[in-house]
Amino acid sequence: MIRAATPLDVPSILGLIQELAEYEKLRDSCISTESLVHEALFGSNPSAESVVAEVNGEVTGFALYFTNFSTFLGRPGMYLEDVYVKPEYRNRGIGKQILKKLATICLERGYGRFEWSVLDWNEPSINFYQSLGAVAMDEWTVYRLSGEALRSFVENDFCEPAEASV
Amino acid sequence: MIRAATPLDVPSILGLIQELAEYEKLRDSCISTESLVHEALFGSNPSAESVVAEVNGEVTGFALYFTNFSTFLGRPGMYLEDVYVKPEYRNRGIGKQILKKLATICLERGYGRFEWSVLDWNEPSINFYQSLGAVAMDEWTVYRLSGEALRSFVENDFCEPAEASV
Repeated sequence: MIRAATPLDVPSILGLIQELAEYEKLRDSCISTESLVHEALFGSNPSAESVVAEVNGEVTGFALYFTNFSTFLGRPGMYLEDVYVKPEYRNRGIGKQILKKLATICLERGYGRFEWSVLDWNEPSINFYQSLGAVAMDEWTVYRLSGEALRSFVENDFCEPAEASV
Repeated sequence: MIRAATPLDVPSILGLIQELAEYEKLRDSCISTESLVHEALFGSNPSAESVVAEVNGEVTGFALYFTNFSTFLGRPGMYLEDVYVKPEYRNRGIGKQILKKLATICLERGYGRFEWSVLDWNEPSINFYQSLGAVAMDEWTVYRLSGEALRSFVENDFCEPAEASV
């Protein structure tokens, strides 16, 4: 029921990514395409892996993940970028089965950690994750450079000295 | 001055990882070894890449990063796991040069985002990152399953249905 994705699943996976973006109120930021998803999962240099949940031949949910690395542990870990189950298939434990499949892969591969991010207002998901024993990394905030800010940082000269630990 | 790390840099890199752990008050969590760092950067299936800052032949700072993937953009990105400059070499712009080198790699590879995490009390670093144009992903919190909690999730049966978006 939970199995590794194949190239035939790409259209379903893109559809679920778009539904998730809708749920997260980020639909405008979702500009992926079938060919980009195919390249990421099944191209010559894959940057992610995916599992899907299948019920009576229908893909009802998916997860997409990749390998990260902890310098403190000295070991790789798994970062779960997306997990999503169609609304009409919720409350059957499918999400939990997906996460359990991924946690099993972590143990099989000797990964030190299994991590993912959640939006602070997404209380149902937070409760679910806490029920699994996951711990909130409350002390940490992610910073992001993208688009014009990333380009501008590269193209402009910065002469002032750096502060802080760097 | 900022160059890709080589296998000869592994002892210096491990030393800097340990200094960073000390600075972050997480020295006890830092159990990496030279052989683990070597495997991660230069093994048969590398999980990370690294650049070092060299001043008069001495490695004075480093960064370690890996590729992540945005399902919304459909493109890979760079996640900077660690960046660190020895205290006696700070305020010379070395950290900024390291970040600029990494941002340049992001553009060269067509990455959509350049991301990293910072401890909420590390105000000097936060100010530095904001001065570069980086944006805090304030709405998101990372959850982590590791060690005994990860094992226990895999080994125990959970029968209650999942809630939320999964």
